Amino acid sequence: MNNIIAIGIAGGTGSGKTTITKLLSRRFGTDVSVIYHDNYYKAHNELTYEERAKINYDCPDAFDTDLLIKDLITLKNGGDVLCPVYDYTVHNRSEETVLVKSAPVIIVEGILLLQNEELRSLLDMKIFVDTDADVRILRRIMRDVKERKRSLDSVVEQYLATVKPMHEMYVEPSKRYADIIIPEGGHNLVAVDMLMERINAHIHIAGKC
Amino acid sequence: MNNIIAIGIAGGTGSGKTTITKLLSRRFGTDVSVIYHDNYYKAHNELTYEERAKINYDCPDAFDTDLLIKDLITLKNGGDVLCPVYDYTVHNRSEETVLVKSAPVIIVEGILLLQNEELRSLLDMKIFVDTDADVRILRRIMRDVKERKRSLDSVVEQYLATVKPMHEMYVEPSKRYADIIIPEGGHNLVAVDMLMERINAHIHIAGKC
Repeated sequence: MNNIIAIGIAGGTGSGKTTITKLLSRRFGTDVSVIYHDNYYKAHNELTYEERAKINYDCPDAFDTDLLIKDLITLKNGGDVLCPVYDYTVHNRSEETVLVKSAPVIIVEGILLLQNEELRSLLDMKIFVDTDADVRILRRIMRDVKERKRSLDSVVEQYLATVKPMHEMYVEPSKRYADIIIPEGGHNLVAVDMLMERINAHIHIAGKC
Repeated sequence: MNNIIAIGIAGGTGSGKTTITKLLSRRFGTDVSVIYHDNYYKAHNELTYEERAKINYDCPDAFDTDLLIKDLITLKNGGDVLCPVYDYTVHNRSEETVLVKSAPVIIVEGILLLQNEELRSLLDMKIFVDTDADVRILRRIMRDVKERKRSLDSVVEQYLATVKPMHEMYVEPSKRYADIIIPEGGHNLVAVDMLMERINAHIHIAGKC
């Protein structure tokens, strides 16, 4: 038994997961390490760019969750890991890796975290960020069009073809495994504050042992 | 500005609100005071027992919420209050009152807390306990039949006639005002633990000033 806890932050696209993760990361510095399920999208070097662009990225099969689980176990045991990095511009795993060091608190972020039973069993706190679907799609449009330079048509098409049906099939039902449901994500300061106090108490205790 | 915070614990009948309230109350002793919206059911001395038994107790109008708000403001300002007491056996407000002292944390519990805008504005943390309807009705049956000695028929009849429609009309929609949603109530130890850490941090800070 060591004093490392894992916190899963799940929820649909645009729910506000990343805002929460960043607030926690900024507040606790090296006491918190973060791994993103999105970085564990499977590599598809055997496919062309056009073929990769057509993959359903919102389905559990799109992820190498076994590798995420392996890395999470390593981190929970106090070891460091080299996380894969996903490159959205080429729809493929990049050549790079990122060193993630173990810490008293490991945050795992991703839309489908709570859908996988083995992953759930490794999470000491399971959080689901719950935001209305209309707010979520607006945030996704703003992010994908402005930051990722995708066309509005392609964002809408992908949303209706895969994001929405997969959300309804896998993400929304996984909410029932959550320990805590946070409406509106990082804009919900009362909830973020509560999460911070819980983490703070853990770091305080972990530091004493 | 003083250092008193109010925490609202709302959620449908049988959701597990009271279990959470009791766990917090036991853990923090006199640092936490509790008032129950249920004790603020309107007095109906002008009606017969039979007439009172037919009242819709799941409608916002059944409560003297103005009095609850007045008492909560007094408690938040550091004053003590004499809370009314509701007597379920006669379906009426009892002659008794209960002295509730102010404390660093005031918990307000009730199904319809988040439905009232003025009440919401007084709550520093708004919690909604969310439990499946089938689990909730089973808990209600167990409580009303075993503890309150009501007949199974009367519990089922009341549930279908008023509890369920009022839940759908007022309780469920009020969930959107929650800061944190806790599935399964007092059985959810991860959530209770988080709530305790938040309260603990507040009491610790309040005690220092």
